[in-house]
Amino acid sequence: MSALLSALDEPAPIVLAPTGMVPTRAMTPHVPLTPAEIASDVAAAAAIGITSVHLHARGEDEAPTWEREVYRRIVGAVREAAPDVVINVSTSGRTWSEVERRADCLALEGDLKPDLASLTLSSLNFLTQASVNSPDTIHALAQIMLERGIVPELELFDFGMVNYVHVLRRKGLLPGPVVANVFFGNVAGMQASLAEMGLALDRLPDGTIWSGAGLGDFGLPVQSHSIAAGGGVRVGLEDGIWFDRGRTRLATNPMLVERVHELLALHDRAMMTPAELRERLTAR
Amino acid sequence: MSALLSALDEPAPIVLAPTGMVPTRAMTPHVPLTPAEIASDVAAAAAIGITSVHLHARGEDEAPTWEREVYRRIVGAVREAAPDVVINVSTSGRTWSEVERRADCLALEGDLKPDLASLTLSSLNFLTQASVNSPDTIHALAQIMLERGIVPELELFDFGMVNYVHVLRRKGLLPGPVVANVFFGNVAGMQASLAEMGLALDRLPDGTIWSGAGLGDFGLPVQSHSIAAGGGVRVGLEDGIWFDRGRTRLATNPMLVERVHELLALHDRAMMTPAELRERLTAR
Repeated sequence: MSALLSALDEPAPIVLAPTGMVPTRAMTPHVPLTPAEIASDVAAAAAIGITSVHLHARGEDEAPTWEREVYRRIVGAVREAAPDVVINVSTSGRTWSEVERRADCLALEGDLKPDLASLTLSSLNFLTQASVNSPDTIHALAQIMLERGIVPELELFDFGMVNYVHVLRRKGLLPGPVVANVFFGNVAGMQASLAEMGLALDRLPDGTIWSGAGLGDFGLPVQSHSIAAGGGVRVGLEDGIWFDRGRTRLATNPMLVERVHELLALHDRAMMTPAELRERLTAR
Repeated sequence: MSALLSALDEPAPIVLAPTGMVPTRAMTPHVPLTPAEIASDVAAAAAIGITSVHLHARGEDEAPTWEREVYRRIVGAVREAAPDVVINVSTSGRTWSEVERRADCLALEGDLKPDLASLTLSSLNFLTQASVNSPDTIHALAQIMLERGIVPELELFDFGMVNYVHVLRRKGLLPGPVVANVFFGNVAGMQASLAEMGLALDRLPDGTIWSGAGLGDFGLPVQSHSIAAGGGVRVGLEDGIWFDRGRTRLATNPMLVERVHELLALHDRAMMTPAELRERLTAR
């Protein structure tokens, strides 16, 4: 059977990225910022169907924060509102670089321990700023995740980061399943062309659980390509606040998840349930 | 006529990168570090044939330096030893990040004014460290080059940087000819596969004067691919200190240039002379 047809028979992960570091209340009334708002959006999305949620924490002033206490409140609220959903916390260094801060949320214990944590595999530029992830930082975060039994959710924005997946595996820092969000359309990253998507995805290790994400107006085409290519999708206001490329209609997280399900139904594909993902995460 | 056959009829730039920031005397006796050593290597390479030279400055302790005075001595020695060769100075931020330091060598005047200056189009990781080039820094350096009449030699390590060429052009920061060194084989960059090379090169603006470079053991295959694809090459100890992939024989800069000429001859291709490049640089 062809690899594509086999992949289409596999369930597709849907990763919800409801908040991110950039959208503010002034940009859109629909971005969930407080623990209660985030939990409410995750619950609404889970009622439609999502596999996992990628959480970012915000402080009182809406600014991103790394503090474990804020993550504790968010993860607690999400676990209560949507107990099944697989939880991924951000270790982003876009606004702070120390490993201690970036790893602070990885120390959450018990039911609050995250299932996954983001790990960006190189330094890169976004539209207006650099995001620095030095090799030492990447290795240190991967080591902490390994010791804590948290699976890295790799964030891949360019070909060099795809190559670095193989480097981390050779170093023994990624012994388990490979879970990756692959981003297209960042101004200084891979673009949302079929050629770039196809070549990047072909470079991933066999068996990678991948979700395609398009930034801004590239969201819908990348989601569509990913679903038709046998992958999953990452979707949510973190990656774009508009529902349409004409930018006439602000999106909500549930609206975006709903449209992913329309695409899945059209392709006769199933969503990967949280339980199915958990089983893949613990397989060795 | 096919685009490939037309390109093969065009002369190929040979960019010599003799020194870089990494090789030390302890690593290889052949790396030129002082102004006199660099000028001597450039003259030897020019006698074989090179189009331009990409200069890095080193201090007394062999460590990289951004100081204009050191660049003044190097550029002066190179102009005297090889008056025709087109000169490119580095604005690398790998070990310092302030625009003032990175742009210091751009202020050289008169005969010492560089023809080209390097401009790396995003942040990235090398093997052991991050190299941070934020959007603001890139724009500031490009603006200074534009005002000084110095053409940027774009350094492209991944697809995002290739995309950023188009962004800079839309911003009006790159109104003239596009000159680019395209690197393959960095651990967190594009790899030296035909697919990655082909797609990246196809994404460059029409008319780009490009030279392919392979890091370390990827030097020779990338030079060969580039020459057979109608491009130029960048070569020199900056990108790799060994002559053979078995790492049995340390290279010298003239040896590496000699081998590029063997490849050119085999493909019946001509080298772009310094005068031909100067003409392209001043065309609008």
